[in-house]
Amino acid sequence: MSETTMATDTDLTPLTAEQTYELDRRHVFHSWSAQAQITPMVVTKAEGSYVWDQDDNRLLDFTSQLVYTNLGHQHPRIVAAIQEQAATLCTVAPQHANATRSEAARLIASHTPDGLDKVFFTNGGADANEHAVRMARLHTGRPKVLTTYRSYHGGTQLAINMTGDQRRWANDAASSGAVHFFGPFAYRSPFHSSSVEEEGERALAHLEQTILFEGPDTFAAVVLESIPGTAGVLVPPPGYLRGVRELCDKYGILLVADEVMAGFGRAGRWFAVEHDGVVPDLLTFAKGVNSGYVPLGGVAISPHVAATFDDRAYPGGLTYSGHPLACAAAVATIRAMEDDRVVEHAAALGDEVFGPRLQDLADRDPWVGEARGVGAFWAVELVADKATREPLAAYPGSSPQMAAVVAACKKRGLLPLAVVNRIHLVPPLNASASQVHEAVDVLGEALAEARAG
Amino acid sequence: MSETTMATDTDLTPLTAEQTYELDRRHVFHSWSAQAQITPMVVTKAEGSYVWDQDDNRLLDFTSQLVYTNLGHQHPRIVAAIQEQAATLCTVAPQHANATRSEAARLIASHTPDGLDKVFFTNGGADANEHAVRMARLHTGRPKVLTTYRSYHGGTQLAINMTGDQRRWANDAASSGAVHFFGPFAYRSPFHSSSVEEEGERALAHLEQTILFEGPDTFAAVVLESIPGTAGVLVPPPGYLRGVRELCDKYGILLVADEVMAGFGRAGRWFAVEHDGVVPDLLTFAKGVNSGYVPLGGVAISPHVAATFDDRAYPGGLTYSGHPLACAAAVATIRAMEDDRVVEHAAALGDEVFGPRLQDLADRDPWVGEARGVGAFWAVELVADKATREPLAAYPGSSPQMAAVVAACKKRGLLPLAVVNRIHLVPPLNASASQVHEAVDVLGEALAEARAG
Repeated sequence: MSETTMATDTDLTPLTAEQTYELDRRHVFHSWSAQAQITPMVVTKAEGSYVWDQDDNRLLDFTSQLVYTNLGHQHPRIVAAIQEQAATLCTVAPQHANATRSEAARLIASHTPDGLDKVFFTNGGADANEHAVRMARLHTGRPKVLTTYRSYHGGTQLAINMTGDQRRWANDAASSGAVHFFGPFAYRSPFHSSSVEEEGERALAHLEQTILFEGPDTFAAVVLESIPGTAGVLVPPPGYLRGVRELCDKYGILLVADEVMAGFGRAGRWFAVEHDGVVPDLLTFAKGVNSGYVPLGGVAISPHVAATFDDRAYPGGLTYSGHPLACAAAVATIRAMEDDRVVEHAAALGDEVFGPRLQDLADRDPWVGEARGVGAFWAVELVADKATREPLAAYPGSSPQMAAVVAACKKRGLLPLAVVNRIHLVPPLNASASQVHEAVDVLGEALAEARAG
Repeated sequence: MSETTMATDTDLTPLTAEQTYELDRRHVFHSWSAQAQITPMVVTKAEGSYVWDQDDNRLLDFTSQLVYTNLGHQHPRIVAAIQEQAATLCTVAPQHANATRSEAARLIASHTPDGLDKVFFTNGGADANEHAVRMARLHTGRPKVLTTYRSYHGGTQLAINMTGDQRRWANDAASSGAVHFFGPFAYRSPFHSSSVEEEGERALAHLEQTILFEGPDTFAAVVLESIPGTAGVLVPPPGYLRGVRELCDKYGILLVADEVMAGFGRAGRWFAVEHDGVVPDLLTFAKGVNSGYVPLGGVAISPHVAATFDDRAYPGGLTYSGHPLACAAAVATIRAMEDDRVVEHAAALGDEVFGPRLQDLADRDPWVGEARGVGAFWAVELVADKATREPLAAYPGSSPQMAAVVAACKKRGLLPLAVVNRIHLVPPLNASASQVHEAVDVLGEALAEARAG
């Protein structure tokens, strides 16, 4: 038998959009969905900030798919790196060493906050968070973790039990060791605050009370999205993360920053913790690390946590840890971000375009209760009544009005990310200023149309 | 800002093996290891059944890395499919549909046992098992699962708690809902059996007793590796899996076949359950589905379980579910396996080469207590004493003798997989008969050298 028989034709037979849809409905089981109630859009082509649907409509992709194509679609440097790595060495098991994995780890460590210079690679964000909690538990010898309501940490059993939204409910084992508390959210304050500053102070007092009554010595870690993303781009008040860091130090609890969505430039910094000058003990990442071109996640580890496993085996691992093809995509992504100053560009998009344009929309549009964000990471909170702040869709569902807004956006060529009563605008970090202007224009028109309709 | 700046040079700077090793030790945190006590081999090149180390030694890779490169290294059809998909469309989020994902799901469903024709894609085997258990729990409304000692189901928190080996111990939450029982293992029978047939019967009686005393209505699923792999390639007695299927039907418990290692041809069948003619309710896969060239796993779902989520949202998902690049590698892998009759070849390797050659070794070598396996899936059980069957290394560690066997193999150009007191021989399925002969020759010489030394 010959080891390798070449097919005369390519193995990737083109399918029509109709065939794609038909096979999808027959054979593909979709995430987070009632399978009989969905009609997936067929993505037939993608480039830069655009995707094309089954009817060849071009859509400005302000979802970045699931907030991960940070350098847009089909970035030539990432594509080239994947192709080159594929030609050379597709895969090497995690027990060995490999040049591309070494280089990816070095590049990632060169951008993480001070000292977080060891990287445990995973396949995505969920297992990154699972392993960060494991490291924290074994380092501290303590069982529980603190996580916030209004958060998402991944779909596997521990990660979904850490999560603070409705996706946990059907999976709640009541035995995960996760204790939920409220983070700051000035627009809908759980603490009846009257200012952002007061919200930060009261949120910290609430966290400390929770720690004291749950038992400080029972906690391995506080696990926080540095900026809760799917929950609504809840940029914390200045000083809040520093305050959490101080509480962690006071009680011997580790701080795990979940930067899966907020990291790698999304928030206009390499990592969102930089906005508050905070160094976590563990930092988890995925998505933007390689623009999601190949599945990859990981945990960046501080020296004191890493040392726990110098002479004691870390009881965790996975077959594809540090996968060379995924690492090649990370190397090209990070180098392109450095060379093209993509993080600085994302920061400027936030400061100069998103910020002023969305504030103007909030001032003018009767449905826009608040627009908040930073960098290329924005949420527009839609309300039925600006005075009462009644959401345009009741948690955790959607509403006909929200569906109408999304439909009106798509009709105008904009693909937005709708979450409950919010429209998230999360384009590739290298989207142009004019694309952001266009998206905000479209959103304004779509809101007016949906209101009229 | 231009969206895409091309680097003048490639982004994948070559590193020397020394640089690779140095950066690895500084920045890469390895799976399942005491970080200060490992000296990873640098893999600098790989092709077909061979890898090359830092000193340019060529090694016959009878590990398939971690038992996943089922078509060997750098198979041209898989490489070409990855490169073509990369050039076209690297990534599409799971809520959309995509041609390559549709085609991969169709191809997988065309090989799974009858009726398992919906596929939920994950990133690997661990999350596949986590989601299979979730589906089973929600389908049955029952909390617990039965899994075996001597098993491995993955590294995330639920999967490692389902696992029946020492890797669970440091992670045991005592609250996972996994109840462990003993599977059949005639050579070291937990049931004091005197024949393979008796072992199968007693193992089934033990399982039924466990179900009865734990409470039949408390179990969502029995989760079994169809052939426990890392635990020692424990091929079950004929009829055992059928008996488990009957017990599941009797008590309304789902059967989840973990085919992450045994599936996609490893056992000389597309799926190892075929050896016993069993159709599980859920089947999990990873590794061989695309030879591990891009991280991919999944759950194949029966119609009755899938129907549970027709009008009720499945509360699970992940960002990279059905990743097009991973699916492209699966499409090429499966087509190459079909065209080259790789599964039939693996079966013949087992029947015609591994089986007789290893039986001969067992007859001759004083350290070989038993050789067992099927297809390209074999374990050689090493003992200090054939009469007492005392293992050559005490569970769960290694021993100087085992280290000597591995070193002697590597010196002779063979990379074996050593697990406790066993040498697993798990080459690519398209390894040649002469490569298998060579490997068995080398193992025989290595055993003699280690014994002498």
